[in-house]
Amino acid sequence: MNELELIARLTRSLPSNASVVAGAGDDCAVLDCGLPGRYLLFKTDAVVEGVHFTSEAKPEQIGHKALGRCLSDVAAMAGRPLAALVTVALPDNFAPEFVERIYTGINGLAQRHHVAIAGGETTSNPERLLLSISMVGDVARDKCILRSGAKAGDALFVTGELGGSRAGRHLDFEPRLAEAQWLAEHFPIHAMIDVSDGLAGDLRHILRLSQVGAELLARAIPISRAAKLQSRAESSAKPPLLAALSDGEDFELLFAVAGGHAVALLDEWKKQFPKLRLSCIGRITAETGLKLQDKTGRHSLETHGYVHFA
Amino acid sequence: MNELELIARLTRSLPSNASVVAGAGDDCAVLDCGLPGRYLLFKTDAVVEGVHFTSEAKPEQIGHKALGRCLSDVAAMAGRPLAALVTVALPDNFAPEFVERIYTGINGLAQRHHVAIAGGETTSNPERLLLSISMVGDVARDKCILRSGAKAGDALFVTGELGGSRAGRHLDFEPRLAEAQWLAEHFPIHAMIDVSDGLAGDLRHILRLSQVGAELLARAIPISRAAKLQSRAESSAKPPLLAALSDGEDFELLFAVAGGHAVALLDEWKKQFPKLRLSCIGRITAETGLKLQDKTGRHSLETHGYVHFA
Repeated sequence: MNELELIARLTRSLPSNASVVAGAGDDCAVLDCGLPGRYLLFKTDAVVEGVHFTSEAKPEQIGHKALGRCLSDVAAMAGRPLAALVTVALPDNFAPEFVERIYTGINGLAQRHHVAIAGGETTSNPERLLLSISMVGDVARDKCILRSGAKAGDALFVTGELGGSRAGRHLDFEPRLAEAQWLAEHFPIHAMIDVSDGLAGDLRHILRLSQVGAELLARAIPISRAAKLQSRAESSAKPPLLAALSDGEDFELLFAVAGGHAVALLDEWKKQFPKLRLSCIGRITAETGLKLQDKTGRHSLETHGYVHFA
Repeated sequence: MNELELIARLTRSLPSNASVVAGAGDDCAVLDCGLPGRYLLFKTDAVVEGVHFTSEAKPEQIGHKALGRCLSDVAAMAGRPLAALVTVALPDNFAPEFVERIYTGINGLAQRHHVAIAGGETTSNPERLLLSISMVGDVARDKCILRSGAKAGDALFVTGELGGSRAGRHLDFEPRLAEAQWLAEHFPIHAMIDVSDGLAGDLRHILRLSQVGAELLARAIPISRAAKLQSRAESSAKPPLLAALSDGEDFELLFAVAGGHAVALLDEWKKQFPKLRLSCIGRITAETGLKLQDKTGRHSLETHGYVHFA
């Protein structure tokens, strides 16, 4: 049983109540708490030494990554983050300075995005560091973007460049909060997710929940310099396109927008975010399944996203 | 440096914003998100194998304890829990059935208190199980009870019986949500906390934040049967009164109420909660420090609560 199968079993019959608009299965839980015109977003995410970072990572980077992952999930709903709680489970013989440097990484990113660190706890996890962030945010009810709204004919876009994140970017990415809020404000975005499991894996989440398919254009997929360098340096490395499709931890936005708005979106984006690449990588199809179009033809894409344990 | 000193260093300069009413240092963070007449409560709490439970604990009990600790903190603010997220960090070679049984414990307690389990995540923690719960709740703005409001002349009360919790009660306690909400609705409760670190340790949190002192009456402190049995069974065990003062994990409510209401409160409580003991255990004093009055006189109480690591 892999992670996805276990989660499917666990989430089959969770207790619910009238506050739950969207529970397990989207980037954040969406709650109706009686906030006028707005939903509450609720998210938790953990990073574990040896799983999500190595002992070579600087403590500031570990803190940045832990908070950044949660912020990236709030971005994927076009939300605004409000406050976070920090759970630090510390190995034996930790140095207090190490913990303070983790907080330096957390606090710097929090300040840039106006997020309060409203508390948390320290506990013990003798063999390795585990850092878990809980976050609340909010979003206008009519601007909240789920994974489930993609429609046949939508254009598929992705921000930035993909692949090779583990060479460094996974420790210093900037969550796309302003970009996502701008998108929801100005364009009919039907579905959005942040790329954490890999483009193909995360796109499959959108397709499954929206009950549609998609066709990707191989030459349009933005491949990072890191993925290209890795492929040249190591003969055992993935080809760059495969890295872009499956590496994960890119923390870019993948979204579907009504097809007629694709050109206007590219134009407006260049004015608004001139330093961040935006790529139209394909389209949503009524036929289910994920296809890749390259110069040799149209192929069914078997590649799937990173599965945390097999 | 112990846990309390480290936390003091980390919380000295956390990023904040306009939403934060009370941050690190109370039972829950209190947020003003624009909910009409209400505050949002936000809490996270983790339990770790070998620290908060042994490998002999049943998985249902581990789930119950993890969620119950968070619910007990919401109770300590007189709040109403809304939704929780579950982070399960799993050791290598876990059995899927074990995880499902953890959820059985979580879900049963959640259903009794009308709490939604709105998602969460599974991750890997190779050597031991770690379970972290995040929770949001809410509370009427004029009924939210902090640790910091105790006043000289207040009467001090505690629910239930204290000490010896590790003999079993720490795994099957029932959070005092209904009791706390009833108290806030009917009496001028000035400060409240749930007893997790031990009566003396948790009372010291109230005293420090309220800038007052307290005098406890030794003969009025309700000692659990478990603490008495342990003391008789093992010559090395703590005397029962010391166990009640310092064992911790009782998850009872400790609160300060305006002194003139003490008798009426005891009367009304007996009608409302006939099965749950309520004890008046002392009073708040203008003079700082914690004193214990017993048959030999009035002593300064050196005993402090459980400190998670030294």
